[in-house]
Amino acid sequence: MLKYQQIANDIEKYIEDHALQQGTKLPVLETLIAQFQVSKSTITKALDLLERKGVIFQVRGSGIFVRRHKRKGYISLLSNQGFARDLEEFDLTSEIIELEVKKPTEEVALNLNMDLEEDVYYVKRVRFMNGKTLCLEESFYNKSLIPYLNHEIVKDSIFNYISDALGLKVGFSDIYLHVGTLTEEEAGFLQLKTGAPKLYVESIFHLTNGQPFDFSKVSYNYEQSQFFIQANGQLF
Amino acid sequence: MLKYQQIANDIEKYIEDHALQQGTKLPVLETLIAQFQVSKSTITKALDLLERKGVIFQVRGSGIFVRRHKRKGYISLLSNQGFARDLEEFDLTSEIIELEVKKPTEEVALNLNMDLEEDVYYVKRVRFMNGKTLCLEESFYNKSLIPYLNHEIVKDSIFNYISDALGLKVGFSDIYLHVGTLTEEEAGFLQLKTGAPKLYVESIFHLTNGQPFDFSKVSYNYEQSQFFIQANGQLF
Repeated sequence: MLKYQQIANDIEKYIEDHALQQGTKLPVLETLIAQFQVSKSTITKALDLLERKGVIFQVRGSGIFVRRHKRKGYISLLSNQGFARDLEEFDLTSEIIELEVKKPTEEVALNLNMDLEEDVYYVKRVRFMNGKTLCLEESFYNKSLIPYLNHEIVKDSIFNYISDALGLKVGFSDIYLHVGTLTEEEAGFLQLKTGAPKLYVESIFHLTNGQPFDFSKVSYNYEQSQFFIQANGQLF
Repeated sequence: MLKYQQIANDIEKYIEDHALQQGTKLPVLETLIAQFQVSKSTITKALDLLERKGVIFQVRGSGIFVRRHKRKGYISLLSNQGFARDLEEFDLTSEIIELEVKKPTEEVALNLNMDLEEDVYYVKRVRFMNGKTLCLEESFYNKSLIPYLNHEIVKDSIFNYISDALGLKVGFSDIYLHVGTLTEEEAGFLQLKTGAPKLYVESIFHLTNGQPFDFSKVSYNYEQSQFFIQANGQLF
């Protein structure tokens, strides 16, 4: 972890530990520089990270302020690390339905920017939160980037394995959301009724070098899942 | 519009006009500085903006690259400007169901951080895309920040009015998503069947100074709406 990331973590932890409310003013830049004994650019990078994460907001000429705490139990749609981190207070488990190496379909090859003759790891899992079904997930990993997966890895967090064991850095992702109804097969896995509403999410995850490594299709149990986004301004 | 925003727009337009594909390398920083005749920090700010918008990605020591174009017709969940901008190719209209000044409920007062004795503008609209129902929207505006709304304004883009006529700057937003089923009343407005699936979105929009000015509850027609998020990495 880089220095500015460590400082960002420290500041975030301070806000959480003291349950600071939205609008609470944080110390000015100069105070933070003196307190952490680092350069202005390091503090600036830490603050920008916290702003992107939705922890603080900065008002030019006025100061640095705490943002509202997100509601509990919501899954972040902006996390690029899988949702294990958002739901730390819950018991997350997985049941593996399928794990095999196969050739990509045209749709998968297109989304992973690979050839039809190359291999993908295909993973199909039902994920559970506190013993109740959370979602049905089908993921396709480009095997030339993720050369090895087994049941033990797939039962746990694949993203942790990718970053910790393979040393790969997860970068940006494209996420597409649709609302629809559950097919009979999906309903069976999710223990819901056929035709019940679902949130269906397709994601393409890239490494920091821009290579797409995971194309996933997830159908969520609508009774168990709720989502949040903390959006920053300044996009236009 | 600030200089760096103008440059970001120019670069984005260049990418669109030339239909540059994901992974296309853009000129190096020095070339862009020479081309736009501005400082390094202005170009850096323009590139950071484009990265946050999901237009490009930057690889340290390697260069600046184009990101995949988003699929057409998807509504951005990260736009803080209402969705009129995502759906420019469509004909968007509104039917006003209700527009009145009233006292906030406890829920509304809490989300807008205001007193129960203060006033809100309550706006209830059905929004249409190419003549089909897109969503049913209930919005509550803090009247001390948005002092005046009328039918003409509400028929069009309220966010354009807020930024152009009132000169207010829209900052960050908190967005909460749930999937559920339509009530009879909602189904009536959306011209769907009671019990059909819906995406239900609650948003709290803030000014750049951190004041919440709009709390909105939107139920989307699932047949008409699909959403995307272009997420950046580096959040952890």
